[in-house]
Amino acid sequence: MFITVVLAHPYEKSFNAAIFSTIMETLSKNGHAPYAHDLYKERFDPVFSSKELETGESRDPVVVKYQSELIASGGMIFVHPNWWGQMPAILKGYVDRVMRENVAYRFGKNDTGGGVPEGLFTGKKGLIFTTSNTEAGREEAFFGDPLDRIWKKCVFEFCGITDYLRVNFSVIADSTMEERSSWLGKVGEIIDSQFPKGS
Amino acid sequence: MFITVVLAHPYEKSFNAAIFSTIMETLSKNGHAPYAHDLYKERFDPVFSSKELETGESRDPVVVKYQSELIASGGMIFVHPNWWGQMPAILKGYVDRVMRENVAYRFGKNDTGGGVPEGLFTGKKGLIFTTSNTEAGREEAFFGDPLDRIWKKCVFEFCGITDYLRVNFSVIADSTMEERSSWLGKVGEIIDSQFPKGS
Repeated sequence: MFITVVLAHPYEKSFNAAIFSTIMETLSKNGHAPYAHDLYKERFDPVFSSKELETGESRDPVVVKYQSELIASGGMIFVHPNWWGQMPAILKGYVDRVMRENVAYRFGKNDTGGGVPEGLFTGKKGLIFTTSNTEAGREEAFFGDPLDRIWKKCVFEFCGITDYLRVNFSVIADSTMEERSSWLGKVGEIIDSQFPKGS
Repeated sequence: MFITVVLAHPYEKSFNAAIFSTIMETLSKNGHAPYAHDLYKERFDPVFSSKELETGESRDPVVVKYQSELIASGGMIFVHPNWWGQMPAILKGYVDRVMRENVAYRFGKNDTGGGVPEGLFTGKKGLIFTTSNTEAGREEAFFGDPLDRIWKKCVFEFCGITDYLRVNFSVIADSTMEERSSWLGKVGEIIDSQFPKGS
């Protein structure tokens, strides 16, 4: 199975990068072919041009490539830190520019964009790994964990993906080596169960 | 009163740009001095460098200027479309790069970043105008309106701002000239009531 794997963290040695490596190793062990992208390393430009927004089509070969990869993928995995209850700007720009109308969703014939679109990613799997420095109870009670709704409802279900999972690891800033190692073990198990050999 | 006003929409003639103009005219009529920024026109770079994240300090003069303006401002107003239940990437990058530790919030002495910070924007006013193409009932019931929590809890309260207001206009795609004109009237009234003459 083709799988898109996207990392959005500026540090080469971040825990996010370690999650990304574990994902890649496990997918490869299970015989899958990942389209892997480290957005910072690839210096992805997250800003829409006015023309790109207007025409609905990108002339940026990187965006066109990411789009065709997503279309070909049976699953997509995103790895990023929770910054301000949201994804980093570079990944937000990936969603803005890559998951466009007629790629990820489409509107009916007489719909000018105000109606309910049809998702075009039906049947694909969505998987999110996030990290944060907020203790789980405070995230839910005080912030209301908007990132969960963002991925599950606003992005995945909007595009027709109903088979999704999000796993958050916290508190990163105070974590021990043992915790990090056990979290990476969990990442491997999840990949094994979501994308097993022969799937 | 100094007030920071930020616009994040790529079209020069967008309804967001009209909201921005109405805000500027009303603030000026009321004798306020806005620091106004159209992030697309200014070609703001929303991507953190690895060094900027690590050191906690920016060497980008634009970021340093935005930071000192925010610190000097008694209020801040952001105008943007709801894209994927979130702000556009260019504005997300403004939040990431400008609202940094020791500018917008700070951690206690022995806190490595895993605790609850102290907001440094206490006493300032926060005002958000958003536009969307989702009908209000569906936004609340299906998507859960994550943008509301993002601004109110994750950004404003995190930075110590408890005096905030968010107003959303929808459905933009299907709106008439009369609706748009009445919405702009509402924007003027809100600015008049939040930032009256002599405040």
